[in-house]
Amino acid sequence: MSTTIDITEETSAVAKGKAPLIATTTYSDGSKGYKKGIAIFDFLLRLGAIVAALAAAGTMGSSEQTLPFFTQFFQFRASYDDLPTFQFFVIAMSIVGGYLVLSLPFSIVLIIRPSAVAPKMLLVALDIVALTLNAAAGGAAAAVVYLAHNGNSSANWLAICQQFGDFCQKVSGAVVASFISAVALVFLVVLSGFALRRH
Amino acid sequence: MSTTIDITEETSAVAKGKAPLIATTTYSDGSKGYKKGIAIFDFLLRLGAIVAALAAAGTMGSSEQTLPFFTQFFQFRASYDDLPTFQFFVIAMSIVGGYLVLSLPFSIVLIIRPSAVAPKMLLVALDIVALTLNAAAGGAAAAVVYLAHNGNSSANWLAICQQFGDFCQKVSGAVVASFISAVALVFLVVLSGFALRRH
Repeated sequence: MSTTIDITEETSAVAKGKAPLIATTTYSDGSKGYKKGIAIFDFLLRLGAIVAALAAAGTMGSSEQTLPFFTQFFQFRASYDDLPTFQFFVIAMSIVGGYLVLSLPFSIVLIIRPSAVAPKMLLVALDIVALTLNAAAGGAAAAVVYLAHNGNSSANWLAICQQFGDFCQKVSGAVVASFISAVALVFLVVLSGFALRRH
Repeated sequence: MSTTIDITEETSAVAKGKAPLIATTTYSDGSKGYKKGIAIFDFLLRLGAIVAALAAAGTMGSSEQTLPFFTQFFQFRASYDDLPTFQFFVIAMSIVGGYLVLSLPFSIVLIIRPSAVAPKMLLVALDIVALTLNAAAGGAAAAVVYLAHNGNSSANWLAICQQFGDFCQKVSGAVVASFISAVALVFLVVLSGFALRRH
């Protein structure tokens, strides 16, 4: 397998006239090491993204607060269940986290065989979908968190964070975690794009 | 230039043992045509994404409604200016649309020279950033539009779409347009990923 790749690298280097034939072995080895380096970095970034995505889903999923006072008919309680956007956030971030966990074996395959193309293509395509989902969920939750903090006088929506301070803090933390995971995914996709070049 | 590429394709085909030397010219031509096809499709997708992104920004930016009744102190008026999320949406979608317009020359360069690598890398990296921005803006606006339509009883936020029906319709249209542009960008990025393979 590796011999075939060596020949490819060699001949294309010659064709481009970049290196004389004698130096090609070194060039090829460098390219392979470079690919392996990218694959290892991809794996580590993926681990970071998993932690961030699952932290976001978990923090949001466990966010609820019951106020210490209540009337005869009503108890004041806030939970992520009350806002459909936060439910969407939990589902979306769980999907992203679950996908990233399932993608780890493929990432390991790419460390062992840096030149395998099929798993790389699969990962890039699915990473892009995960990134889109993550960004949409993060943006949506951020918009609602902003409303919860500041309210909106035109629409006559009052801020609820004065009453539900702990709830708001947890929810904001979840949004920050989802942004971290989105940034990690952007780097993952850009990195995979560079690794797809057969260089 | 084209001769150099032909040699590269030829020799790598030989190295992989996929085709005998005599058949390589055909193979090489097919690969080049395939890349040119991807580049043309990329250009068309980009045009579609531009229309969708600018339509989203324009629709949202022009959305306002003044109710035909008013009190002595207050006139009932809704505009995208009133909600910071919608302001962010207009800015983000304008950036995405503007970037896509500026990327057209690069896309044309790739139609003329399907094997140029530098503009392809640049486009992929910036497309990914544009996609993230687009998805976040779309998600955020969708969350607020949902609240405007349905309100939220737990947070005591009332739906405003009963009063501001036209406003809500325009805003919802803008969100749909931004989702169309996001889907176009996903295809663009996946396509560029495939085109980056030197095959």
